[in-house]
Parts: sequence; structure tokens; C-alpha cells
Amino acid sequence: MALLIKTDIERGNAWAEALASAYPELKTHTWPYKGDPAAIDYALVWMPPEGELKSYPNLKAIFSIGAGIDHLASDPDLPEGVPVVRMVEPGLTAGMSEYVALAALNHHRFIQDYANQRREKRWEEIPQIAASARQIGMLGLGVLGRAALESLGTFGFKLAGWSRTPKSITGISCYHGEEGLREFLAETDILVCLLPLTPETEGILNRDVFAQLPQGAAVINVGRGGHLVEEDLLEALDSGQLGGATLDVFHEEPLPKNHPFWTHPKVFMTPHIASMTIPETACQAVVANIHRLEAGEPLRHVRDMTRGY
Amino acid sequence: MALLIKTDIERGNAWAEALASAYPELKTHTWPYKGDPAAIDYALVWMPPEGELKSYPNLKAIFSIGAGIDHLASDPDLPEGVPVVRMVEPGLTAGMSEYVALAALNHHRFIQDYANQRREKRWEEIPQIAASARQIGMLGLGVLGRAALESLGTFGFKLAGWSRTPKSITGISCYHGEEGLREFLAETDILVCLLPLTPETEGILNRDVFAQLPQGAAVINVGRGGHLVEEDLLEALDSGQLGGATLDVFHEEPLPKNHPFWTHPKVFMTPHIASMTIPETACQAVVANIHRLEAGEPLRHVRDMTRGY
Repeated sequence: MALLIKTDIERGNAWAEALASAYPELKTHTWPYKGDPAAIDYALVWMPPEGELKSYPNLKAIFSIGAGIDHLASDPDLPEGVPVVRMVEPGLTAGMSEYVALAALNHHRFIQDYANQRREKRWEEIPQIAASARQIGMLGLGVLGRAALESLGTFGFKLAGWSRTPKSITGISCYHGEEGLREFLAETDILVCLLPLTPETEGILNRDVFAQLPQGAAVINVGRGGHLVEEDLLEALDSGQLGGATLDVFHEEPLPKNHPFWTHPKVFMTPHIASMTIPETACQAVVANIHRLEAGEPLRHVRDMTRGY
Repeated sequence: MALLIKTDIERGNAWAEALASAYPELKTHTWPYKGDPAAIDYALVWMPPEGELKSYPNLKAIFSIGAGIDHLASDPDLPEGVPVVRMVEPGLTAGMSEYVALAALNHHRFIQDYANQRREKRWEEIPQIAASARQIGMLGLGVLGRAALESLGTFGFKLAGWSRTPKSITGISCYHGEEGLREFLAETDILVCLLPLTPETEGILNRDVFAQLPQGAAVINVGRGGHLVEEDLLEALDSGQLGGATLDVFHEEPLPKNHPFWTHPKVFMTPHIASMTIPETACQAVVANIHRLEAGEPLRHVRDMTRGY
């Protein structure tokens, strides 16, 4: 049995090593692969070249290295009938919870404002607001969104979430659909985006949405760059409708040197590092899924063609 | 029954209002007080002028507005036999947990390094370390230290604490005494100081302690400025022994404009805002203690003269 890995060299090597130790019988190849395409059973990929995957006639499953599968879904030439598997693994979930928690706490406690004061050597207290008076609103209640919200629950924030379909989760006020979005936004002080990127969610962080948040609200985008209308964010920050933003993902990555986000005093940004798949923990999820498929059991976390993620 | 409040005007008014609603029979005065000193039963204070408190002959208890009582303990002229009560209230505890969590997560996820990269418009990933591979070490296992550690437990960090006397707390590796300090420091990646300031703990964050931490460790000081030997911190940061520091308290506050901390790239600093007593929640703690004393029951959170806090 053989698996082809396509990612950058360093990560590819880490994956090959982790898989060799977790599943010695599985032969791994790193892309580019010069052998017989018919010998490849599985692909584990991040941003494969368009059309590449259909050149393996015996592919049984495609594993995404990232949580999102938009990097695959945009390939018009994916092999038909081959299941695409999203990455759900504890390392990725933990990293995202850490990042969302620190970003939300930084907004809650005005850390960006204090950093700006510090540049001017100003020593001024900004009145504290109780966590119980702040709603963290999560766009997207998948594995990552839910875990991130739950870790913020420790601090006593009001927790709310919005999803495409109705959900019910203890401790989280759940909203859905267009009418639900309005109610959800009206009460959300810190908005976090962890939606999958699909044609429906593209540009969801836009002027209309920002206008429905309470004045001074903060926005954290850890989904994809495509979720955010960047000009609308700049306008809402500059008008004071939004108090701040934390951005980890961008339309163009690396962010072009002349982009206004680099120096905007109300933006905190990081270079797409909110969470990374950790081969050592993630290989267990991949191996377990391969065992399921080889045993004729259904795969977990398969892309649903009807919803697009 | 009358209580005298000594703090800044704004906070004093907030306290008077909160107490009026929680305990209408209690008469409150804000300092400076021109009436009969013998009419004052209680004092609620932050940094009272030296010798001031002994001019009230009928004082039954002195309540500190802050968690620490070093601002009182340094008064050589405190009235004898009058109990000094530390502030323990849920608003103060919650605020401190938030601040310690954000500071620890910011160090854990290299947020200060990313902020420095950003200034140079650099886009570089810094490899992530699993929380389970990092020990948060708390100096001081009082109400605040314990609560802050426990909220960090949510993220899967290894938790450790060091205190003067032996303690045993589920989920926290507890160390004490001088020998214990050595073992505790050797395994601590992120060191937090929430000790009371006493002659024994003054200058505890010094060169010797930094040298015992693993190379690249971070230090968070949310105790008092007097805990830290500032020159030793600068030296340890500049040599690379320490990877970063978050400081909320300083020897001199406001921090003098020419102090190197203002611009040091490995320091994140805030103007003594980690946590503030919130009169709305704190007045319940004060009122409950007054009721206890009036009913002849023992006060809670009284300063222990033998240990000094």
C-alpha cells in the first residue's frame, strides 16, 4: 500500500517519518513522484497542482493536510468518486483554541490599545469590562469553532455561535440562517470566523455584517482570507464601528509589503500560524481512517459534496 | 457605623455608591475626612498617608482595596491590634486569570516575536510547541495564583507552583522552600510571579533565578515591581537566557519615560492594569466581613503578622 505526500519539503519529511513509525507497512512517497501512478493508493496533500490528483487511477482517498479543503475544492479536475477527507486531529484543534483564546483575551483586555499607548510612552488605565458582559460570537460551529468557544468559557464570557444548519450545544447560544445571523451579530462583542470557505461564506466578513455588530466590536479572522472583504474592514476600523481586528489569513499570502494591514494600529496580524497540523498527532487520524477503509468501514470527516466542505 | 474610604476620587465614588446599595446603614466618608476621628469604625484604603490610620482611635478593621497589602505593611505607624484585611473578591481574581492567561498564551505562541517581525514586514512561521510540552510555573499559590494556573489548565499546559509552605493541589505540581525552588525553576518554561511582596520575596526575580530556568524561558511579573531586579531582567533578555517578559508592575509607577522597558523588543508591558478590584463585586466581600465582625465572628483574609501578608 502506498501514500503520496504533497506539501513543502520539511513538512513532507516530518509526515513521512511520523507515518513510518505509526504504520510501517505503508509505503510513503513525497511529491514529485516518478514511479508508477497506478501504485498510489492514497494522497495526503496541501495545495496539489490542478489536475495532478486525477493522474492516479487507483486513488482510494485524498487526505487534506489542513482543516479546510478549499485548497482542493477549487480544483475543477479532482478525480470523480474519490472521497476527500478533512483534517481533524487534536494538535490542530488545540493550536486553534490557543490562538482564538489569546486573540479574544487580547481584545477583551485592550492589549492592542496598550501596545499603541506604549509606543507613545503613555501610562493610562483603560476601564476593564467583566467577561460576563462580553459575548464571543463564533461563525462556524465545527470541531475547531466549538473547541475554541469552549476554552473561552473558562473565563466566563457569554458564548454564542452561528452555523448553516441548526445546532444545540450546552453553554453556547446557537443561531443559524439569515435571520439568526442578525440576532447573533447584534449581541456579539468579539466576532471570530472559523467557517469553511465556500461560495456561500466567501466575503461574509463585510460592511453589512460589521454594521450589525455593537459599536467598538472586534473581529478575529482565522478562517480563510477569502472570508474577509479587506476594504470593508479598513473602513469599519477607521470609522470606529470596529474597535480592532486580529487577522491570521489574507487574500494574498504572504501579505504584500505595501498592504495597509502591516502598519494599521487597530490590526494585529500573524503570518497564517493560528494552527498547524502536527504530523506526530495527525498521522494517527490518517492511519485510523486508512484502516477503516481497508476494513470496509466508512471514512470519518469526508467532504460532503452537497454542502461543499 | 461609619467607614472611611481612601483611594483616588473616581474609585472612591464608585466604592461609596456600591456600599450605599449593598449596606445602606453603613455611613461612608471619602478621604480627606474633616469630622470626628472617633466616629470612624472601618477604613477601606489604598496607599494611605503614613501614620494616617492611627489617628482613628476606634478603628475595628482596615480593608485593603488591592490584593496586596504591601502598601500598608510598609507603614511603621499602623495602629496596633487593628486587623488588616486583604482583598479577595471574584472580580479581582477573574481579571488576574484573564491577564495571566493572555500573557502566558502570548509567550507560548510567540506573539511578541510576531509583532517584532511585523514591524519589519517579515512573514515567517515560528515552529509551534505543544502546550503539553510547556510548564507554566507560578510563584505564589494564593487565591490569585491558583485561579490563574487553573484557567491555563484548560489548554493542556503542565502546571506547577511554588509557595513558602508545602501545599497539595490536584493538577498542580507543588514545590516549596529553597530546594523546591531549584527543581521548580529547572522545569518552568513560563514563570509567573504572583507572590505577596515581603522582605523575603523582594527581588526574587533576579539573575540567579533566571539562570536556573531553561534557556529561552519567559517571565511574567504581575506581583509588585519590588519582586523584580530590573537590571537582571535586562541582562537575561539581552544574553538570550530569557526569551521574553511581560511586565505589569514596576519599581517606579508610572514608569519613567527614559526607562529601557518602554522600547525593549522582548518586553511587553502594561500600566499596572492586570487586575483591578471592582467595587460592585468587592463591596460584597467587605460587607460580609463587617457583618462577621459585628456578629463577633472571625474576619476572613486577615493579614497574618507572623508571615507578613
